[in-house]
Amino acid sequence: MKILIIGAAGMIGAKLAQSFAADPEPGLTEVTLVDVVEPKAPEGAVKMRTGTLDITDAAAVQAALAAKPEVIYHLSAIVSGEAEMDFDKGYAVNFRGMLNILEAIRAQKDYHPKLIFASSIAVYGAPFPDTIPDDFFLTPLTSYGTQKAMGELLLADYSRKGIVDGIGIRLPTICIRPGLPNKAASGFFSNILREPLVGKEAILPVSEDVRHWHASPRSAIGFFRHALRLDTAKVGPRRSLAMPGLSATVGEQIEALRRAAGDEAVALIRKVPDPMIQGIVAGWATRFDPSRALDLGFTADASFDDIIAAHVADELGGRIGPRA
Amino acid sequence: MKILIIGAAGMIGAKLAQSFAADPEPGLTEVTLVDVVEPKAPEGAVKMRTGTLDITDAAAVQAALAAKPEVIYHLSAIVSGEAEMDFDKGYAVNFRGMLNILEAIRAQKDYHPKLIFASSIAVYGAPFPDTIPDDFFLTPLTSYGTQKAMGELLLADYSRKGIVDGIGIRLPTICIRPGLPNKAASGFFSNILREPLVGKEAILPVSEDVRHWHASPRSAIGFFRHALRLDTAKVGPRRSLAMPGLSATVGEQIEALRRAAGDEAVALIRKVPDPMIQGIVAGWATRFDPSRALDLGFTADASFDDIIAAHVADELGGRIGPRA
Repeated sequence: MKILIIGAAGMIGAKLAQSFAADPEPGLTEVTLVDVVEPKAPEGAVKMRTGTLDITDAAAVQAALAAKPEVIYHLSAIVSGEAEMDFDKGYAVNFRGMLNILEAIRAQKDYHPKLIFASSIAVYGAPFPDTIPDDFFLTPLTSYGTQKAMGELLLADYSRKGIVDGIGIRLPTICIRPGLPNKAASGFFSNILREPLVGKEAILPVSEDVRHWHASPRSAIGFFRHALRLDTAKVGPRRSLAMPGLSATVGEQIEALRRAAGDEAVALIRKVPDPMIQGIVAGWATRFDPSRALDLGFTADASFDDIIAAHVADELGGRIGPRA
Repeated sequence: MKILIIGAAGMIGAKLAQSFAADPEPGLTEVTLVDVVEPKAPEGAVKMRTGTLDITDAAAVQAALAAKPEVIYHLSAIVSGEAEMDFDKGYAVNFRGMLNILEAIRAQKDYHPKLIFASSIAVYGAPFPDTIPDDFFLTPLTSYGTQKAMGELLLADYSRKGIVDGIGIRLPTICIRPGLPNKAASGFFSNILREPLVGKEAILPVSEDVRHWHASPRSAIGFFRHALRLDTAKVGPRRSLAMPGLSATVGEQIEALRRAAGDEAVALIRKVPDPMIQGIVAGWATRFDPSRALDLGFTADASFDDIIAAHVADELGGRIGPRA
């Protein structure tokens, strides 16, 4: 089995490649990693190739699929803020990129790979019920969410036609996102844990009663690995699934930080209310009932203690506290 | 005010043009009717222009919008069966046609027309609850439904961005559809009334307990006229609406026929069960709770007696019975 990861230079793509390197799927012979910038190949027991691919270039996408990988992960996207500011680029990458992949598959004879598509809870738009059921409608309030929802519709139609065997993974907000603090409106959910865990200050722009829907990077990789093994006959024609996650308030996040790293870590969180971010966050989903995904065997983090412990193990070499 | 009707050679488009000719909107100065074949201009008090337009031709769409009509009706589509058989043509007309219209609008400066888009209950896919609420998800089971759902997403995003002032009208099955019997799987809902009303036989391929969601052509025109007048600020970001309709069983249709035209008309319905049509129809929606559309002032037929009476008045010159 050959796997192609499109978007392998991103955080999830890189971790997914590492996961296959460390723990290869049975029968896996080769993993190809592509992105707009050439991804790094992790060390491991599996043969890894790397290359560049601009998914807005239909001919390049066709060439990238000429080797007929049995499994394709499509993780490439322009993020929400950029898609909102650059309308053309957002549609080019997030929508036509998906269409180029589907059409490149359709253009080949006897080729019906599994296509695992990273979607997002941005396909939903407020107002919401307290808990969003699996049959709740998709009314995105961003161009990014619109493009992901259109990609989901294509994925279902091309799957129904037997062109691909598709599955869409609606990711919760990833927390704790490794790396540096960024200016994404959702960044603070990660910042207020990641930074104090290494003795640094973090800004909290919203109140502690704000509730949101989270999954750790480790859970996200678990979703994508499980999707590969999943018998999609059990999924039926509704190919995209809201993933399980953890619904928690900011206050609950902070109490988990206190249990892991003590009062001195919590004291590093500075409350600087930001009405703009408060307004954006007020439009986000807070809780799902992901019954379908749970029934299909997808699993997520049980608590923010687990999420913090996974971050400390995976990103901090097991050690909390300031770096030298 | 100038109005452009794209798809004006179709049944709904022609009736809409007749409606503007007979009862012009206040301030209406000109109606332009275009379709792949040149539509006929109805007689009336309003200036009518006609022309041809292939909406898959982006440059032609731009030229058609150069006059900046304040209101655009987009009624053009490849029907469900054809879109299912010809994948490329369906996406070209039903999806890229819509995109071409939106992009032609975006390309013009200071031009933000009202765009009234004919969608369909085909955006829904079984299994359904007994009554489909306004927040039920769109899981189309045909390429046609997929293309309409994608058009709805674009309409909402381009409206949110202020490019157009869009509204999507999810039409129920139109009954009684005038004209000749056709082979659409839904054709029998109209055939079993229209044909016996003029003394002809009709085939009923399903059982009398089949329930479906109907609106008369007169109601459909009412939806499109009301959409023009509607203050879309009241609609908010969720721009597409399931229209009100009449949920009725085939048995209820037949009893309305009996009241209008007697036992001899009902006797013209021949029951010829067709398992293929039965299977298709089993996947269709039977009842909606269109609360949003009702709150916004859209209205539909109260009974099949009304639907039959409207057909007799509008299509049969008020007279039931065989034609000479």
